[in-house]
Amino acid sequence: MPKPTALSGFPELLPAERFVEQQVLATLADTFELHGFANLETRAVEPMDQLLAKGETSKEVYVLKRLQDEGTGDAGMGLHFDLTVPFARFVLENAGKLDFPFRRYQIQKVWRGERPQAGRFREFTQADIDVVGRDTLAFHHDVEVARVMAEALSRLSFLPGFRIQVNNRKLIQGFYAGLGAPDPLTVMQIVDKLDKLPGDKITELLVVDGKLTPEQAELTLALARISSDDTGFVDQVRALGVADPLLEEGLAELAAVIEGCAGITSDRVRVVADLSIARGLDYYTGTVFETRLDGFEGLGSICSGGRYDALASDGRTTYPGVGISFGVSRTLVPLLAAGAVAASRSVPSAVLVALADEESRPRADAIATQLRANGTPTEVAPRPDKFGKQIRYAERRGIPFVLFSTDNDHGDGGAEIKDIRSGDQFPIDPATWTPPAEDLRPTITTMQETPQ
Amino acid sequence: MPKPTALSGFPELLPAERFVEQQVLATLADTFELHGFANLETRAVEPMDQLLAKGETSKEVYVLKRLQDEGTGDAGMGLHFDLTVPFARFVLENAGKLDFPFRRYQIQKVWRGERPQAGRFREFTQADIDVVGRDTLAFHHDVEVARVMAEALSRLSFLPGFRIQVNNRKLIQGFYAGLGAPDPLTVMQIVDKLDKLPGDKITELLVVDGKLTPEQAELTLALARISSDDTGFVDQVRALGVADPLLEEGLAELAAVIEGCAGITSDRVRVVADLSIARGLDYYTGTVFETRLDGFEGLGSICSGGRYDALASDGRTTYPGVGISFGVSRTLVPLLAAGAVAASRSVPSAVLVALADEESRPRADAIATQLRANGTPTEVAPRPDKFGKQIRYAERRGIPFVLFSTDNDHGDGGAEIKDIRSGDQFPIDPATWTPPAEDLRPTITTMQETPQ
Repeated sequence: MPKPTALSGFPELLPAERFVEQQVLATLADTFELHGFANLETRAVEPMDQLLAKGETSKEVYVLKRLQDEGTGDAGMGLHFDLTVPFARFVLENAGKLDFPFRRYQIQKVWRGERPQAGRFREFTQADIDVVGRDTLAFHHDVEVARVMAEALSRLSFLPGFRIQVNNRKLIQGFYAGLGAPDPLTVMQIVDKLDKLPGDKITELLVVDGKLTPEQAELTLALARISSDDTGFVDQVRALGVADPLLEEGLAELAAVIEGCAGITSDRVRVVADLSIARGLDYYTGTVFETRLDGFEGLGSICSGGRYDALASDGRTTYPGVGISFGVSRTLVPLLAAGAVAASRSVPSAVLVALADEESRPRADAIATQLRANGTPTEVAPRPDKFGKQIRYAERRGIPFVLFSTDNDHGDGGAEIKDIRSGDQFPIDPATWTPPAEDLRPTITTMQETPQ
Repeated sequence: MPKPTALSGFPELLPAERFVEQQVLATLADTFELHGFANLETRAVEPMDQLLAKGETSKEVYVLKRLQDEGTGDAGMGLHFDLTVPFARFVLENAGKLDFPFRRYQIQKVWRGERPQAGRFREFTQADIDVVGRDTLAFHHDVEVARVMAEALSRLSFLPGFRIQVNNRKLIQGFYAGLGAPDPLTVMQIVDKLDKLPGDKITELLVVDGKLTPEQAELTLALARISSDDTGFVDQVRALGVADPLLEEGLAELAAVIEGCAGITSDRVRVVADLSIARGLDYYTGTVFETRLDGFEGLGSICSGGRYDALASDGRTTYPGVGISFGVSRTLVPLLAAGAVAASRSVPSAVLVALADEESRPRADAIATQLRANGTPTEVAPRPDKFGKQIRYAERRGIPFVLFSTDNDHGDGGAEIKDIRSGDQFPIDPATWTPPAEDLRPTITTMQETPQ
């Protein structure tokens, strides 16, 4: 087989990079579970009709075909392009076996059948949390998912600061209704381009395509420009002089999310009301979320979501939901590539047991077993090379400690440990010794530790 | 959307079942890491020519096709059907960035484009460990992978007892060579059917298709019937009177694996020499492994592998490897379906904070935050229902504790916890109280706890 080359859009991590990802996933899972979210994994495939159910023809889907299947034969299945469609299907399929409100988290790969293109992922990992109810779902779950995801991201201490931007579809739609906009959906789609087009171009589009008067267009733009890190946005919106019951409902809900997150914000973690956020064509009906990473704004939103009044429905029963999805690969792959985050070693091993000769391997294995019994990841040298070479073996992998057996001719077992970073060497008892906690597992190092 | 139905061959787990799987995967990962194996995840897809490189046309593969791709256009990629092919490709692609010998574990889903059929998985999870060298790989790694996997499986205490059956291709091939068999490969394929066909049928096939004399056929059958849980097999083989240098090498290697595993065997965990094991057509060149689960022999081998002299090769450099693959879904899905194993609850939450009225939600959230800060998974009641109804909410999910806030009119914070299993209720301080360790997370319960 000639040397294979990487496949564009299918990122793969080397062992030390994968360690960083594992730590991220473990931190996310731990946070979600502390808040009572149960884990689910759904199959990778869904029937094509469900993948395309919401007219998502814009989403590129990979269709499966059995190799042995001659002729027409699609399997009628495609790889899921997000975790929401499979979750909605899972809820309908298993509704009788689930207790509602049902909190779940799901961390899985998703696929997009994109044309190969630089910076465009075709396989990537997402971490989703959702709360779903049967018939009804109280609004306080909107506050809950925002808090849980903000807490999870804030525990990823290697991340730069980030800003969760919250808005509310009721607020926008109520405002447009109060304004008398004839085609609110088109208006929302135009405003959604605010970060791509200049303000006067937006105004023009609002008048021409959005069928607004210039005054209505100005107010629409003024609304989209409001943002605040507290509930100050409420008065700013009222100052625009538009009144509508749905607008009032949206203002109250958005204020509740911002207030509810007040306890977890910091310099690094901000939860702000940003009235430009609309989440495009997605089927949200209330709260909407996006998230920007400081210094990596080019990544777009790394964590998005919102409230669906009908996450799923079988015609008789409707399941409303609210959730957020964190783009793990989208965030981590560029940070790893930029060297902004790395792991301290490429193997789990904290200790290498050195080997004087091949005959002493059983003794080395026995020592390794003692260390592992106390939770210390340990490997035994593959060959009885000169000790200098064995130490370099450890160095290359970032293993901090090398253990030398000091058995004497009388068979008295003994051992010395060498910290190969400092060169210190000292006697230990393998039955009881453990490395310092910070050396037990690989650790994550970040560029931010260097003062900027 | 009408109620969807399950897709045959794509098992999905309910939350409590998924908890069991999560625990299994965590135990496997922990064991592998204690032995210095680093985690890898490879992409789900491989180029079709690599999936079919070893003439694996018998393996059903799912081919990908982009939905938007008109005409002929396969993407030229298929979903991997095991974790060995992708790992071999990863080693070749990244050889310059890896340190050898390289230990890795990989826990991922694999896919087989099978015709839908009862009991046949089309998507399932495997857990693989491999050690791969550059140019050479010492034999002691064969012993290592057997020990590591035996230890990992033995830590899955809910599993029935199991038997790792070890054989060695050098032993078999050397024996056939010493016997003078004209077509050793055909002989091996016939012997591989020993568990499906009666002995006299095998003898007949060995003579007709295997081109052996009746005496050679008898000796071949006698070899395949040898098994021992210690190195007793060596003398049994020698008693057959066949001599060959490769046979001697195989005997020594197999004896070393059995001796090397002696320290970890028990009533539940047996590592035995079984000279009927051949692993069919797979490209093993030395040690081979299979594993049977007591009482679930119908599952076939749940954990198989062996030594490849050329796991991967780019023409200039060869990478020998040895590994074992545990069929996680293959083992767990039938055990879950049989009710042989279950989780104690369907949510991570150990505590439900009850709610007297909606106004006290912020106080309930604050108490929940205190409990979570000490590592206790906690949720707050979704509605201020009557306390009896809130207790039933906890009961249905298996949450063991319900917390009642006992704030008095003077604002003095207080709390009482109720163990809803015993009915005991007692005052606690939410800032310091944690549940007993065994209640902190869902636990795995097994049928085996009932004496048989």
